[in-house]
Amino acid sequence: MKKIMLLNGPNLNMLGKREPGIYGTGTLAELEKRITQLGMENGIEIISFQSNSEGKLIDKIQDAWESGIQGIIFNPGAYTHYSYAIRDAIAGIDVPVIEVHMTNVHKRESFRHVSVIAPVAMGQIVGLGFKGYELALLALLDKEKERG
Amino acid sequence: MKKIMLLNGPNLNMLGKREPGIYGTGTLAELEKRITQLGMENGIEIISFQSNSEGKLIDKIQDAWESGIQGIIFNPGAYTHYSYAIRDAIAGIDVPVIEVHMTNVHKRESFRHVSVIAPVAMGQIVGLGFKGYELALLALLDKEKERG
Amino acid sequence: MKKIMLLNGPNLNMLGKREPGIYGTGTLAELEKRITQLGMENGIEIISFQSNSEGKLIDKIQDAWESGIQGIIFNPGAYTHYSYAIRDAIAGIDVPVIEVHMTNVHKRESFRHVSVIAPVAMGQIVGLGFKGYELALLALLDKEKERG
Amino acid sequence: MKKIMLLNGPNLNMLGKREPGIYGTGTLAELEKRITQLGMENGIEIISFQSNSEGKLIDKIQDAWESGIQGIIFNPGAYTHYSYAIRDAIAGIDVPVIEVHMTNVHKRESFRHVSVIAPVAMGQIVGLGFKGYELALLALLDKEKERG
Amino acid sequence: MKKIMLLNGPNLNMLGKREPGIYGTGTLAELEKRITQLGMENGIEIISFQSNSEGKLIDKIQDAWESGIQGIIFNPGAYTHYSYAIRDAIAGIDVPVIEVHMTNVHKRESFRHVSVIAPVAMGQIVGLGFKGYELALLALLDKEKERG
Amino acid sequence: MKKIMLLNGPNLNMLGKREPGIYGTGTLAELEKRITQLGMENGIEIISFQSNSEGKLIDKIQDAWESGIQGIIFNPGAYTHYSYAIRDAIAGIDVPVIEVHMTNVHKRESFRHVSVIAPVAMGQIVGLGFKGYELALLALLDKEKERG
Amino acid sequence: MKKIMLLNGPNLNMLGKREPGIYGTGTLAELEKRITQLGMENGIEIISFQSNSEGKLIDKIQDAWESGIQGIIFNPGAYTHYSYAIRDAIAGIDVPVIEVHMTNVHKRESFRHVSVIAPVAMGQIVGLGFKGYELALLALLDKEKERG
Amino acid sequence: MKKIMLLNGPNLNMLGKREPGIYGTGTLAELEKRITQLGMENGIEIISFQSNSEGKLIDKIQDAWESGIQGIIFNPGAYTHYSYAIRDAIAGIDVPVIEVHMTNVHKRESFRHVSVIAPVAMGQIVGLGFKGYELALLALLDKEKERG
Amino acid sequence: MKKIMLLNGPNLNMLGKREPGIYGTGTLAELEKRITQLGMENGIEIISFQSNSEGKLIDKIQDAWESGIQGIIFNPGAYTHYSYAIRDAIAGIDVPVIEVHMTNVHKRESFRHVSVIAPVAMGQIVGLGFKGYELALLALLDKEKERG
Amino acid sequence: MKKIMLLNGPNLNMLGKREPGIYGTGTLAELEKRITQLGMENGIEIISFQSNSEGKLIDKIQDAWESGIQGIIFNPGAYTHYSYAIRDAIAGIDVPVIEVHMTNVHKRESFRHVSVIAPVAMGQIVGLGFKGYELALLALLDKEKERG
Amino acid sequence: MKKIMLLNGPNLNMLGKREPGIYGTGTLAELEKRITQLGMENGIEIISFQSNSEGKLIDKIQDAWESGIQGIIFNPGAYTHYSYAIRDAIAGIDVPVIEVHMTNVHKRESFRHVSVIAPVAMGQIVGLGFKGYELALLALLDKEKERG
Amino acid sequence: MKKIMLLNGPNLNMLGKREPGIYGTGTLAELEKRITQLGMENGIEIISFQSNSEGKLIDKIQDAWESGIQGIIFNPGAYTHYSYAIRDAIAGIDVPVIEVHMTNVHKRESFRHVSVIAPVAMGQIVGLGFKGYELALLALLDKEKERG
Repeated sequence: MKKIMLLNGPNLNMLGKREPGIYGTGTLAELEKRITQLGMENGIEIISFQSNSEGKLIDKIQDAWESGIQGIIFNPGAYTHYSYAIRDAIAGIDVPVIEVHMTNVHKRESFRHVSVIAPVAMGQIVGLGFKGYELALLALLDKEKERG
Repeated sequence: MKKIMLLNGPNLNMLGKREPGIYGTGTLAELEKRITQLGMENGIEIISFQSNSEGKLIDKIQDAWESGIQGIIFNPGAYTHYSYAIRDAIAGIDVPVIEVHMTNVHKRESFRHVSVIAPVAMGQIVGLGFKGYELALLALLDKEKERG
Repeated sequence: MKKIMLLNGPNLNMLGKREPGIYGTGTLAELEKRITQLGMENGIEIISFQSNSEGKLIDKIQDAWESGIQGIIFNPGAYTHYSYAIRDAIAGIDVPVIEVHMTNVHKRESFRHVSVIAPVAMGQIVGLGFKGYELALLALLDKEKERG
Repeated sequence: MKKIMLLNGPNLNMLGKREPGIYGTGTLAELEKRITQLGMENGIEIISFQSNSEGKLIDKIQDAWESGIQGIIFNPGAYTHYSYAIRDAIAGIDVPVIEVHMTNVHKRESFRHVSVIAPVAMGQIVGLGFKGYELALLALLDKEKERG
Repeated sequence: MKKIMLLNGPNLNMLGKREPGIYGTGTLAELEKRITQLGMENGIEIISFQSNSEGKLIDKIQDAWESGIQGIIFNPGAYTHYSYAIRDAIAGIDVPVIEVHMTNVHKRESFRHVSVIAPVAMGQIVGLGFKGYELALLALLDKEKERG
Repeated sequence: MKKIMLLNGPNLNMLGKREPGIYGTGTLAELEKRITQLGMENGIEIISFQSNSEGKLIDKIQDAWESGIQGIIFNPGAYTHYSYAIRDAIAGIDVPVIEVHMTNVHKRESFRHVSVIAPVAMGQIVGLGFKGYELALLALLDKEKERG
Repeated sequence: MKKIMLLNGPNLNMLGKREPGIYGTGTLAELEKRITQLGMENGIEIISFQSNSEGKLIDKIQDAWESGIQGIIFNPGAYTHYSYAIRDAIAGIDVPVIEVHMTNVHKRESFRHVSVIAPVAMGQIVGLGFKGYELALLALLDKEKERG
Repeated sequence: MKKIMLLNGPNLNMLGKREPGIYGTGTLAELEKRITQLGMENGIEIISFQSNSEGKLIDKIQDAWESGIQGIIFNPGAYTHYSYAIRDAIAGIDVPVIEVHMTNVHKRESFRHVSVIAPVAMGQIVGLGFKGYELALLALLDKEKERG
Repeated sequence: MKKIMLLNGPNLNMLGKREPGIYGTGTLAELEKRITQLGMENGIEIISFQSNSEGKLIDKIQDAWESGIQGIIFNPGAYTHYSYAIRDAIAGIDVPVIEVHMTNVHKRESFRHVSVIAPVAMGQIVGLGFKGYELALLALLDKEKERG
Repeated sequence: MKKIMLLNGPNLNMLGKREPGIYGTGTLAELEKRITQLGMENGIEIISFQSNSEGKLIDKIQDAWESGIQGIIFNPGAYTHYSYAIRDAIAGIDVPVIEVHMTNVHKRESFRHVSVIAPVAMGQIVGLGFKGYELALLALLDKEKERG
Repeated sequence: MKKIMLLNGPNLNMLGKREPGIYGTGTLAELEKRITQLGMENGIEIISFQSNSEGKLIDKIQDAWESGIQGIIFNPGAYTHYSYAIRDAIAGIDVPVIEVHMTNVHKRESFRHVSVIAPVAMGQIVGLGFKGYELALLALLDKEKERG
Repeated sequence: MKKIMLLNGPNLNMLGKREPGIYGTGTLAELEKRITQLGMENGIEIISFQSNSEGKLIDKIQDAWESGIQGIIFNPGAYTHYSYAIRDAIAGIDVPVIEVHMTNVHKRESFRHVSVIAPVAMGQIVGLGFKGYELALLALLDKEKERG
């Protein structure tokens, strides 16, 4: 069975707990459940992982590649803005990655806009909440079909 | 019947004709047909429009708002990077806009990354080709259901 | 009879319709009426024009010059921040131009402050709403008297 | 009787004496007289003050607020470009301030364009000579009428 | 018969009318006549077009490409400095473009130096007045011969 | 019993060992003892933690919030300058944080001055050595009393 | 009897009067009384001074040094951001200075963050209201004991 | 008798008292005496003035101009780096000013290098201690002879 | 027996696996074997360690110092560009560190050039592949002999 | 007989030898021959000179001026980007200089775009290979004719 | 016999004479002898050259290439930071160049860090004194063996 | 007999010939004669040298140092702005250097202001024409006396 990884970075374990006015009331568990289900409906196993640690996220990306995963849906949280180490990890693997942000990060102050991850990702979806993760999965499935 | 506008900016009338290595071989007509069909399957009429002129794109956004449209799928082409006039047009209306770019604009040189439109859009989808337009439509439908 | 042009740029046709919290409830038609009346009281014909198109605004500025107009009251809207083409049009004519902004643009984010038009204008009035247009007319009349 | 303050910053006591090619031949005394007269015609007492000292200008702004003044017409001279202390003084009072510059400061070199005062002022009038002060007074009177 | 387009951007219709001290007294009509004649002497038809509108210039560049033109002599006027939309139009066609400026734009203030068009043009000729257009035509003819 | 966390970031476990000329000879153990004692005298339990790992510091901040802590005294070490992930962790909790630096970081080179943590902290105390931690505790106690 | 100076810069005489939402309702007189009392409890005479004038603040700092003061608690107000003259005055004396800001200045816009005073101060306390002044006094007393 | 002003800005009253390692042990009184004597030997009266206040320095420059002084030897201290008000005062008078700095300010950190005064001065002498003031006087005498 | 540490940062465990076109086909295990052997030939024990985690690299550097190591050969991977925490760890120990990069990092885009580690390292060797690590070892041995 | 100088800067002696993919296979000798011939056909003697040395190029420009040359065709090679000394040499003479670059330098990275020579040249021709030198000669001849 | 060039730029003839605290007491003659000997031990002739002149260094690099040299060990001295002409000379030849700096240039102020030479060199060795030149030779020999 | 060098950089051999409106009509020969005479009156031999070549100026500075010269009066011409190689030459010798510019370089455009030489010079004199060279000699004589 084909596999896609759902990878969430720092503070995303706090979804639904912190700042619900910005991030909504859905929790990380609910998100993972929703994506897992949508995966199953499409014959794809979803591997979910969250960490606050830059090093562990890199470990996981490397492991995913070595275990032959089909794609990664990735919300790098604040590491988006400075983790060249995560960027290198993605650049070094041959797996399509879609970067997702729940809120429209482009609305925030200028420095925070810049994603150092985006240049090595396949694409980026921002501002669409949990729906963004679903769309990322659809895009990876579409990509998978093309490759056939 | 509810309506969503599919709006394409400068040079997107050349899709499939110019630089197929970058933008693929699908034409604008094919894109508009595909989105229109997906719209119909979801009970939504798609209004398609393309122009190379900044002023006409603004006129169209204003008209769309006045005629009670539900959302706009918008690829602003190169105006992305400097059209504060288009930005103001979007900021001034109460209609969700999703900015779409077929290629991963974040891969290109630094100055071109910046979108002056994004801060006033609901969200942004980049790097996913024609699929990105489809996902934008799904997101607007989802949004519509929430309001519903 | 002497003539002064009242020129409004992109999105100013939406005055009173969009964002009334920022721009007030007066419409463009009301503004044009008010300035026309004040012009008539001072023996001046007011020529009003609004466009969302950079090119048409330039056409109009060139026409105004060729038809011997006495001055231009000009709110360039968002073109304020980047239209070097409009700037060149103004620099190339020998007609006093007063740049008007209804809101205090200096309160907004730093990049938007900069007006590329201002260096070629005679003066600038910002933050005073419709009143700013009236004062611009008074200043042009005063200038006219000096020359007179 | 209602009062409006006419406040002039550093070197404006030299009006008519220095650089008449730029600033004209009218003196500060003539300006103060002209504004005082226009004030009287509108039932407003004009309080005039000029100083080269940043501290004294702040003292005066604070005093003006405490004595219940209706508005301030203020040409901050070169303090425009760096006096965050004057800016704070204005930000801390609830009195409308209109910043006036006799010449079009936007024509001068880029750094000098920036006004640190403008973001806390109600509006700004530049490039219109003594007339600019008169228009500022008209705008404050208009504001006063609105409040009524 | 082979064709080359002579394309002029905003305000160049004012040649000979505005700022003759900078741009000389020759008019656009005279320039077009001179280049047309030089074209005829070399067996080339010259298609002349001028517009103040960014959108129309893009339309024309696209049309030129579709109608099999051999080259474009292009003075983008002020759009030189910010029209990424025109840049994209040129980048998307396989036609040699020579950017021409009558005055030495490098003498002007630093920001204005930058041409966003130049990186996608074949070459650039500046500071040589009407002669620069002639030389551009010679260069395109030379290029044509090489291809032969 | 109420609890306050004393949190130290990277390299602060080396206090008293490395660079005593800059950081003094007191060790981290001594600091923790001193703050614990001062806490006890005020009826507050002090939870001490140090880590070189950005991820573990975020884990700890999240845990602290979930276990109902009253405040955090935090020296983020070098993460001060770039850890937007720690910043987000603090922004997402409703606990007052005081940022402490033993040396006057403002004396060092300009880039290092900037704290990305400070904008989400309640306050900041720098340059006062171990005393700075004590004062931070006093400030949190004072805050606690106010809420009281 | 040993002496410590409590020095407040521009607009701090307005404490409790202007913007109570930001600065609280305590007045400068109350602050000076509170610090004086805390000084007395510790056998220290407090010399209080406030001025809106940069020059007078420098005079006072020089006088304080010449009269053998033990330390200065200094809130430079807006001069924080640009008074290199005050910075030089502090750099030229051998008296410990603690810079205090009642609000967390790091929350405000980027330019305002920078303190040109801080590099020559002993330390800095921000964001803790009146309490910050008290803590500064405690730190100076502690410093005094060390020297003792 | 002809007169030249010796003008010293903030903190220069501390010469010989503060930081003798940098500024030497000569006092301001000694400097003024030395220049006065050299002036007398050349038949010139020297008017000496020092102030920590930007406003008073401006007053003095204006007064000097009005009283027909031949030249100004001016060490603006830290105002060198930001006092556009002093710059305007000098720009507005027709008196040669030589800016003097005792130390080589170009050795210090980059921002401090910039003198906003220098562009309106006749010349600048830096890094030569008291000798620099003497040379400035010689230069002004030389200038005077030329005019003669 | 004397010891030197061979320390590799994030993604270097992927050597020979990812992007062989850039980094060659040699694996990390082969590199460590090669350096260990060269160390043994020179009577030095090589301690090898790799981690993707910034925190663990700091832990290791601190441990190395405490266990009396003679030098560190360090390829910080992407942390080169932003880890001020690793920089502080190196700055705080008295052990020579040579920074090694296999590829010529100066060829890549400008921002990535900057190494925040280099200013606290003894030296830097870039662009020489595995050979660079060998040379670093030779340099440390040479250094050791000098001290010896 | 009138004379024009053909001046080539550093590394242009390598034309046809180095990087033929970029600069073509024509050598400097061939270029000089071609321009000399074209000169002769127009009754102009061509003086050719190439040097890698900034100083010698300046010497030559000064000599050319002193010997009454009519114009200079100048490819400054890499000195284009930083030789203010060559710029001053050109600025100081009254001879028209046309700057030529064989490749389109505007295609290269941003910093290299800037020509410090261009502001003092009459014009600039880039991207047209050897043809560019020919066109420069034609332009100088044309200029010569105008002067008559 | 194969040849490698040892090339030293401006002021390196002063080695051992100037600033021995920074550069050590070894002279250029000693360095050249040492590298020549190491070359001979490896069957390589070393060609040594030093010049203060940018032009002569370029001449030498071009000559080296034409005479079939195997590699260049190059310390460009201060030309490192701005000589695009030397950079072009190196870019235009097919010879491996290793840039060497005796001191750790990354410790010096930020602007001086940047090497415009490095992007076209094979590698760079900094901070290792004379040893760095030796290591560069070893790397070139190693490179030679690979090709061999 | 003691010696001082009078060193002039690029284009200063053109004094009196080029741009007399800026640099006056005095020639280099006259300047050298004037300084030589003033030197002789003070028992100092003046060694004069001018070159357009950066390398030769460095050679001369090194020679001057080796031959035991007492000081250098140096106008580096345009090399002022970028010759780090000359800067290093001066930094490496123990001879006082005074940088002289005839015109007030601070009046020119911002980039040109910066002197990379000044930080290693003893002092700088600008804007005083030939007189500036004389004053530099007086300052060196004064310095000599102090040492004496």
